Amino acid sequence: MKNILVIGAGRSASSLIKYVLDNSATENWKVTVGDVSLELAKQKIGNHPNGRALLFDITNDQQRHEEIKHSDIVISMLPPFLHLDVAKDCVRLKKHLVTASFVSKEMQELNEEAKRSGIILMNEIGLDPGIDHASAMQVIDKIQAEGGELISFKSYCGGLVAPESNDNPWGYKFSWNPRNVILAGQGTAQYIENGEYKYIPYNRLFTQTTAVEMKGYGKFDGYANRDSLSYRKSYGIENIATMLRGTLRMQGYCNAWNVFVKLGITDDTYKIEASDKLTYSEFLEAYLPHTKYSVKEKLISFMGSEMDDDSLTKIEWTGILSDEKIKLINATPAQILQDLLERKWKLQENDKDMIVMQHQFQYRNKNAEIKNIISSLIVKGEDQTYTAMAKTVGLPLAIATKLIVQGKISERGVLIPITKEIYQPLLAELETFGVKFEEQHL
Amino acid sequence: MKNILVIGAGRSASSLIKYVLDNSATENWKVTVGDVSLELAKQKIGNHPNGRALLFDITNDQQRHEEIKHSDIVISMLPPFLHLDVAKDCVRLKKHLVTASFVSKEMQELNEEAKRSGIILMNEIGLDPGIDHASAMQVIDKIQAEGGELISFKSYCGGLVAPESNDNPWGYKFSWNPRNVILAGQGTAQYIENGEYKYIPYNRLFTQTTAVEMKGYGKFDGYANRDSLSYRKSYGIENIATMLRGTLRMQGYCNAWNVFVKLGITDDTYKIEASDKLTYSEFLEAYLPHTKYSVKEKLISFMGSEMDDDSLTKIEWTGILSDEKIKLINATPAQILQDLLERKWKLQENDKDMIVMQHQFQYRNKNAEIKNIISSLIVKGEDQTYTAMAKTVGLPLAIATKLIVQGKISERGVLIPITKEIYQPLLAELETFGVKFEEQHL
Repeated sequence: MKNILVIGAGRSASSLIKYVLDNSATENWKVTVGDVSLELAKQKIGNHPNGRALLFDITNDQQRHEEIKHSDIVISMLPPFLHLDVAKDCVRLKKHLVTASFVSKEMQELNEEAKRSGIILMNEIGLDPGIDHASAMQVIDKIQAEGGELISFKSYCGGLVAPESNDNPWGYKFSWNPRNVILAGQGTAQYIENGEYKYIPYNRLFTQTTAVEMKGYGKFDGYANRDSLSYRKSYGIENIATMLRGTLRMQGYCNAWNVFVKLGITDDTYKIEASDKLTYSEFLEAYLPHTKYSVKEKLISFMGSEMDDDSLTKIEWTGILSDEKIKLINATPAQILQDLLERKWKLQENDKDMIVMQHQFQYRNKNAEIKNIISSLIVKGEDQTYTAMAKTVGLPLAIATKLIVQGKISERGVLIPITKEIYQPLLAELETFGVKFEEQHL
Repeated sequence: MKNILVIGAGRSASSLIKYVLDNSATENWKVTVGDVSLELAKQKIGNHPNGRALLFDITNDQQRHEEIKHSDIVISMLPPFLHLDVAKDCVRLKKHLVTASFVSKEMQELNEEAKRSGIILMNEIGLDPGIDHASAMQVIDKIQAEGGELISFKSYCGGLVAPESNDNPWGYKFSWNPRNVILAGQGTAQYIENGEYKYIPYNRLFTQTTAVEMKGYGKFDGYANRDSLSYRKSYGIENIATMLRGTLRMQGYCNAWNVFVKLGITDDTYKIEASDKLTYSEFLEAYLPHTKYSVKEKLISFMGSEMDDDSLTKIEWTGILSDEKIKLINATPAQILQDLLERKWKLQENDKDMIVMQHQFQYRNKNAEIKNIISSLIVKGEDQTYTAMAKTVGLPLAIATKLIVQGKISERGVLIPITKEIYQPLLAELETFGVKFEEQHL
């Protein structure tokens, strides 16, 4: 009998918890789900005989220590900054840990100690990061095994709404943390193209997009992620001439989002005094030069040729030109925009979300011919609980947990899913859930 | 016999130290100048009989305490973040303090204690802030005393190079902290216009300029400062419909500077790895979309109609399109740009700098007529030591010191020069040094 502790029972944990409960009988697992909301934990467990719901307070050192002590493996669905206390307990108590978050500097510093304790701290094993690493490395390893040399690697991912549930001009609804969507891209994107480092600051990120085509789904906008460079080392492709990681949105989204960026209303660094006294259109007007035009005309004049017809339609649809009052008091511009969009971009009862991922590889094969591989993934959600996002984040976590508990992972320390012993069984089992990449060879 | 302690003997302290030494005989003062460089302190004192040069370490609590204890008043020319330790000592030891820096939150918190100790913590008494407050309040008080109501107040200031010393297409040379010039405007400018709050984010700050005309000197570019709103309260003009504070540059500077902003090379938040391996043109190219054009053509295509002919001339003149190697290792983009410009925008041996300030008042007089007053100041430097910047920053500090020591300021606590008992004698004496506003009534 093995004990699995899942910390966090939010929406993105649905598929994960379902998987571990479904497998608990054959695998002989006891599953504990802890959350600050006991109700939420209970709801996820249902009346499963192998499940236990727990009111869990991560800041309670004694409880955290006790629960980890009685587990064989811990899956942390906590916000990234809370993983570290759990990870330190795991190292001390010699328990494995699995998370979907980026490896922080502090997490990486536990590597040697984790190795000495003989445990695994598996991170970045969700969707992005997660499935992207695994699926990219499978192709990269295959190219190299066949004597090829990778020249260019571009990888894009987006969490969107399925076309059949799309009923707004943006082609977007929130399927994960809305705040991250509002602040997306702030900072400077860094990548390498034909051997030259490239930098794109936030102020023009959404104007420098690339069209990414998905068979059967048309074209998407791809914009560069903040850091495309750091994985060259972990992927073993230090000398690659082109490497870019990007985010996907429906075509036209970026041109419209650029309006908000250029206006300055995605800024989260200062508060608008008495923002609840303003209407949305007064708020918008505060970012537009003073003229005798109407607010809409001011916006059109301000954006000039940078805003097309379709973008204006999108902007108007949000209600930001309306005389409705803002609901937040002393809020930042980003908070005001988020609050407005959360009401407009809400995933409805019967809506399905959609995950889109595409890797573009270019390589020189052993006969010195230039070849291209395009590897694409589309996953749609089942409903509001088992979303594509919950599935693609949760299943890799759950499958990795099974592999670790079954003793099938030999490496120890801080890991990410880039080695064959992890990605092969992971991708194979994901296929049984419909998470399957289509490869085109060109 | 009164003891005056000046902490900091850098370039901007020249006129200040000269004034206190020149007045020391008639006023019966002993002047101590402390600096981390004893040589610099000695140089500023010369062989003046009332002067004492001191090797001064601000982090040495005992020395700081002792020297302040033996003074009657302290003038701090330290960087703003270092004032607080001095201010706390002054409050404890019941000594007056004078600085040219903005009142920080921590400084303001000393207000009650300073009042109880019967001392003055006089701040913002340099050029901007300083002369701007004093000269604006003189006009505002006069308008109000005559039964008028202020409707609009715009105030601009710039530290530039005198036309006769201008030999570069930017019309700019560094006369103060270069780092502040490179990072100028980052954040979001906030002001009020015709009763509406206005926000201009950094990404478009240098495209939304106003022409400000100075009689005999032509037009300057004015761009909005970060915070124009907080002085409404201290000036007693809470209900004013328009209030804007801005910075002046030679006409055309802002259009060219916008190229650097749009490229993203004024960013100080991340480092360029091995920047010393790059030429300036390679550095520039890293911010431009990949095409087959030359770097110059890439820049022209990238900026499109946003960059005019003159701006391209300015950009080329900096050397940023050259094949010269960058000298800094792992530097931020802002540091690389600063290093380049420090060599190009250096004030030469015989160069004169120039201070330009203009207040624009609009008011309704007691007969309900709309009136305008434009109040302008031009100050030119004498040489590299007695620059216009050193004069306009240092003289207000020195004059305020004299007024305080003479017992002519009755208020106590944290002050800025906005009351008649300060601004009247201050502006009167500044006129004797040629620091004199010209008023036009329209």
